[in-house]
Amino acid sequence: MSDAAFDVVGLGNAIVDVIAPADDAFIARHGLRKGGMTLADTEASEALYAAMGPATEMSGGSAANTMAGIASLGGRPAFFGRVRDDQLGAVFTHDIRAIGVGYETPPARSGDATGRCLILVTPDAERTMQTCLGASAQFEPEDVDDAVVRNSGIVYLEGYLFDPPPARAAFYKAAEAAHAAGRKVALSLSDAFCVERHRAEIRALVDGHIDILFANEEEIVSLYETRDFAGALDAVRGKCAIAALTRSEKGSVVVSGADAFEVAAEPVAAVVDTTGAGDLYAAGFLHGLSRGASLAECARTGGLCAAEIISHIGARPAVALRELVTQKLG
Amino acid sequence: MSDAAFDVVGLGNAIVDVIAPADDAFIARHGLRKGGMTLADTEASEALYAAMGPATEMSGGSAANTMAGIASLGGRPAFFGRVRDDQLGAVFTHDIRAIGVGYETPPARSGDATGRCLILVTPDAERTMQTCLGASAQFEPEDVDDAVVRNSGIVYLEGYLFDPPPARAAFYKAAEAAHAAGRKVALSLSDAFCVERHRAEIRALVDGHIDILFANEEEIVSLYETRDFAGALDAVRGKCAIAALTRSEKGSVVVSGADAFEVAAEPVAAVVDTTGAGDLYAAGFLHGLSRGASLAECARTGGLCAAEIISHIGARPAVALRELVTQKLG
Repeated sequence: MSDAAFDVVGLGNAIVDVIAPADDAFIARHGLRKGGMTLADTEASEALYAAMGPATEMSGGSAANTMAGIASLGGRPAFFGRVRDDQLGAVFTHDIRAIGVGYETPPARSGDATGRCLILVTPDAERTMQTCLGASAQFEPEDVDDAVVRNSGIVYLEGYLFDPPPARAAFYKAAEAAHAAGRKVALSLSDAFCVERHRAEIRALVDGHIDILFANEEEIVSLYETRDFAGALDAVRGKCAIAALTRSEKGSVVVSGADAFEVAAEPVAAVVDTTGAGDLYAAGFLHGLSRGASLAECARTGGLCAAEIISHIGARPAVALRELVTQKLG
Repeated sequence: MSDAAFDVVGLGNAIVDVIAPADDAFIARHGLRKGGMTLADTEASEALYAAMGPATEMSGGSAANTMAGIASLGGRPAFFGRVRDDQLGAVFTHDIRAIGVGYETPPARSGDATGRCLILVTPDAERTMQTCLGASAQFEPEDVDDAVVRNSGIVYLEGYLFDPPPARAAFYKAAEAAHAAGRKVALSLSDAFCVERHRAEIRALVDGHIDILFANEEEIVSLYETRDFAGALDAVRGKCAIAALTRSEKGSVVVSGADAFEVAAEPVAAVVDTTGAGDLYAAGFLHGLSRGASLAECARTGGLCAAEIISHIGARPAVALRELVTQKLG
């Protein structure tokens, strides 16, 4: 993939995270699904925000976090996603460029405000999310720059984009342009309930068009409606060249052709906030792939990046991941 | 002061902090005064922001931080300060209300955007600030609700408000209304260069109208242009009923009438970010005063709150200060 200007280009929601502590009773009282992501309109988002405690704002978005991770690892990522020309849009744009991600999607001059994700972190470090997509949901095929896709070794698609129809269309356009240029296409399933909303379509996509699939245990079990993880492993085999399946503290399992192997999770002194664990696992894995590393090395790098992100509040790296990985993996 | 609805009402800049790590070379290259606060217009603020690394946004403002601290201690604070009706204004308003501060200043519908303070934290935990006051600088006397002032035991004034003339006028209006109602007036000097810009006026104010003065070593030395801290201690004596002077790791010195005593700093495992140390010292001190504590207890509570705030990124409490103080001071 050395002929590509970018290692990976991500397509995803361009949103700012609004992070606050909360207890389980708060999650229950507001009808949220603990550990999951619920979509909300502006009114519901504002109502939850009004009820939340004091918060911290940081750029987020699943694929955007992954691209930020790749930049922090020393890779060459790019990103497509839509913000509005408002203050939170400026924050998102600043942060993703400042970490070294190529980001040129023009901010929308009309329509909804920049999207935001209200993230409630419970004392067990689990995060529960409510997302108001805003301008992100207006992402459309014209926002995909084919020249950037052709010049990226891998196109990485965020499963959440299945929800808004124009974004889904952009998603297919990017995948087709990538394959036409001989590039690889990766997909992250994002959320079990998102998989449930679009199961048939995602299965067909994985079967026909995805080279590298990222999913956690709950998502892959939901995709193939299997009884357990072992069943899901059997189901995914042969569907795509590589499936990297994460299992929280149990580490990850990589399935590739007839092979399957486990990689243990990286030990963490204290898990503070699990937001971004899957996003950063994907960052490490994809960075390894684009550097020609073995699949085991890719999975170990992913695990290291995930361990860093869950050790602090927020889903963007707090240290230069390149140094962390060099120190731990040499 | 039990007849008052609020323990303290603060007047200050209503701004959002934009916090990022930086090294000393960055501070020098951008012509900033390390450890100090520089005022900037929108253009200069945007230029520095573009050069900064990825950041985290949190509500800030010196007196606003102090009021947030008082709320976290279980007190009854209120705040006056102006934001615009934009996204950062909504963030500021949410956070200060969510922690329990009475805040009813209506957001401006025109004029400059909500102010922001770019805070660069160097590896030595020192913070260097560049502030674009924005809507904060349009704070004016009409924004001071005399009824709230009359119903607050103490009015707390942020020295930074000396910079924008309409805010300074609001400052005097509030001080006069407080004294007319038999309330106390407190002032924080905020920044040595701010003192330098307005020295004669601040001296006259302290001498004639201030009951409780907060300053750090550099600020009090600048105010009285003395050779050293001992000289400043002599100079401030008799100028106001209480002067609480902070000295970083050397703790604080309280001067009251003929008395002066030192209180040691609270030990801190690791100083992460000194932003807000003075603001939270003032919170603890004022909360003690409004509860009828001795001056020594006030200073110890202030030191505890300052120790909490410098142990993490950002100038708003990360834990409920009430519990922390109960645990440490009983």
